[in-house]
Amino acid sequence: MSGGVTTPRGFRAAGVSAGIKANNGLDLALIVSDTPATAAAVFTLNKAQAAPVVVSRAHLERSGGTARAIVVNSGCANACTGGEGLRVANTMAAETAKVVGCPIEQVLVASTGVIGVSLPIEKVLRGLPEAMRELSADQGHAAARAIMTTDPFPKEAAAQIPLDAGTVAIGGIAKGSGMIEPMMATMLAFVTTDANVPKALLDRALKDAVDDSFNAITVDGDSSTNDCVILLANGASGVTVNEGSYAAFVEGLRDVCRQLALGIVRGGEGATKLVTVNVTGAANASEARRCAKAVANSLLVKTALHGGDPNWGRLIAVAGRAGVAFDLERANVTIGSIVLFKDGKPHDENAPAAADYLKGKDLTVGVGLGAGTASSTVWTCDLSAEYVRINADYRT
Amino acid sequence: MSGGVTTPRGFRAAGVSAGIKANNGLDLALIVSDTPATAAAVFTLNKAQAAPVVVSRAHLERSGGTARAIVVNSGCANACTGGEGLRVANTMAAETAKVVGCPIEQVLVASTGVIGVSLPIEKVLRGLPEAMRELSADQGHAAARAIMTTDPFPKEAAAQIPLDAGTVAIGGIAKGSGMIEPMMATMLAFVTTDANVPKALLDRALKDAVDDSFNAITVDGDSSTNDCVILLANGASGVTVNEGSYAAFVEGLRDVCRQLALGIVRGGEGATKLVTVNVTGAANASEARRCAKAVANSLLVKTALHGGDPNWGRLIAVAGRAGVAFDLERANVTIGSIVLFKDGKPHDENAPAAADYLKGKDLTVGVGLGAGTASSTVWTCDLSAEYVRINADYRT
Repeated sequence: MSGGVTTPRGFRAAGVSAGIKANNGLDLALIVSDTPATAAAVFTLNKAQAAPVVVSRAHLERSGGTARAIVVNSGCANACTGGEGLRVANTMAAETAKVVGCPIEQVLVASTGVIGVSLPIEKVLRGLPEAMRELSADQGHAAARAIMTTDPFPKEAAAQIPLDAGTVAIGGIAKGSGMIEPMMATMLAFVTTDANVPKALLDRALKDAVDDSFNAITVDGDSSTNDCVILLANGASGVTVNEGSYAAFVEGLRDVCRQLALGIVRGGEGATKLVTVNVTGAANASEARRCAKAVANSLLVKTALHGGDPNWGRLIAVAGRAGVAFDLERANVTIGSIVLFKDGKPHDENAPAAADYLKGKDLTVGVGLGAGTASSTVWTCDLSAEYVRINADYRT
Repeated sequence: MSGGVTTPRGFRAAGVSAGIKANNGLDLALIVSDTPATAAAVFTLNKAQAAPVVVSRAHLERSGGTARAIVVNSGCANACTGGEGLRVANTMAAETAKVVGCPIEQVLVASTGVIGVSLPIEKVLRGLPEAMRELSADQGHAAARAIMTTDPFPKEAAAQIPLDAGTVAIGGIAKGSGMIEPMMATMLAFVTTDANVPKALLDRALKDAVDDSFNAITVDGDSSTNDCVILLANGASGVTVNEGSYAAFVEGLRDVCRQLALGIVRGGEGATKLVTVNVTGAANASEARRCAKAVANSLLVKTALHGGDPNWGRLIAVAGRAGVAFDLERANVTIGSIVLFKDGKPHDENAPAAADYLKGKDLTVGVGLGAGTASSTVWTCDLSAEYVRINADYRT
């Protein structure tokens, strides 16, 4: 279904131009829950954590996982900016708390843009009252656009989840051209639901959903200083999620997160193809994931897919060096449903059919490790000369 | 000094055209020691090991580390070729043993070229007698050319090492456009010395030398099914290396290996710049190496260097996500000797000087982690659109 961060009841959003981006595009987003919402979040594991990440973590802790508002700017990451960066992120939260009318610890902040540049806080403060005036249940799309940096298109998704106790909605927005471009730092996602979800269950649901969505994508293997996914549950539907309905809720949440995550990969810099990497026959789940990530990050695999080359030897070589249990005599490689290598033997007679399949834009490649029964799916994009051009350009 | 695999006394080599390569270039190399030499080798850790790797490992074990000859073909990797590949690799060794006149287990074999294609053994067998006729102390250069695949130039190096007991020579040849191109698989190096080195000491010396040369380079992070480095010591100088002269010997060996390794990086596919990555301030040596490899493999760093962009935020972001101890407040980034980030603060006033430095072809970048005193150096090349073009081209 179409929809986004304001599809669930009791959420309003806005996206305005505060003048932070040089081109005067939308660059300040505000998401507000009418009532205090239960909040869960996952943050970048990068040790160079941006100021807004530090502040949001602290607020979540102080509030015990309750939030009213998320304020986000694009055009500046406020990362590697020292004590001044922290002061600015705190001011951004404090002023948002004032206009929204809530305690400061119920405000979460996020920034995305160039690393190492100070955030022009006066512009944020000028934009905040306008964002508050614009705030409405039909401005989710503006918020989705206001968090974009190099994204070629906004990412929004929503779902209605019928539970025994009633139907709840989940919606979200995301930005990012993958984990790429720390200078334009990088992946942010904000997901809302009108379900009532106890804090512990919400934390678990977010972890479960993120594992097979945002944590299962890669554009170039680099992760940023600012990555975060925040989930707010305000209970406006009157429906409570419990252990009995947990599975259905997580499935819906995963579906929304995956739509957003795949949007990031499709919009990866220079990307021309969305690639689903399926690893099967692994000794265990973590080895399956490790191998799938290695395949998805291999320059040789990504360039072969870009060129439409059914080059199965590159997939075997990656599987062999991925540091996982692997049996060459029982391994296999498939492109789409076409077998190119099986039980230690090439099937190059199928290469023309595979080359034809690779002309498509939505590709699946499979590697069987022949070492067990575990599997994992990871999504990536191809690597094009356009990627190099985008990232080799001098910033000025 | 100039020289190569036949610079040490008592070694002869040849490079001939056996018709394996489509273009009739040199594709069969033979390296022979006049007397049985002590042999040490390191092989790819890839679990999809090519047939020649399996055979050479077995021969080294059976001979107790003694070898007379190395036979190498280019144009076909003989990898992922099942039982037939093993039979062919064995035949190649057996026929070489016959023409050289030594036990089969004193022959080491290597292959490089396309994965998954059967080696045309009849061509190898036809070429062997010619290689034997050509064998001479001045044909090391022909051998260096005969092992090339996509290499833009041959890699040779040699050194004279004055030890207390006399002077010994070390020489070598290598091929590879980095660890890239498993389909054209990939890095091989053959090093000779006329020193007399006990087997245990030779094994240790090779491991020590390889660690800071071949194992310290990366072009694209992929390692092949055929990688190997073989070191033969025939004692023809009459000089024995012992614990007292070990350090000087290893220094010379490392120097030769490093020249060969840097040649591979300079000749990396699409490479326009040689990049030395220095990581300092690490908690320990293994973390220093891990971070240096992460920097050297980061697409964002490699594309920024290609474009001459002094984009220090990308280096900080990689250091932060490399999984090593890192203190942002004590970290630093240097481009050449120019400081761009220090003690948590940007020095963008130095960006123009750094951009100017990055116009060069031989670059050094430094990352200080602020977490200890260990350091590591890794060599890589930039990532160009040409790399994508080379690797996206369909094989036919």
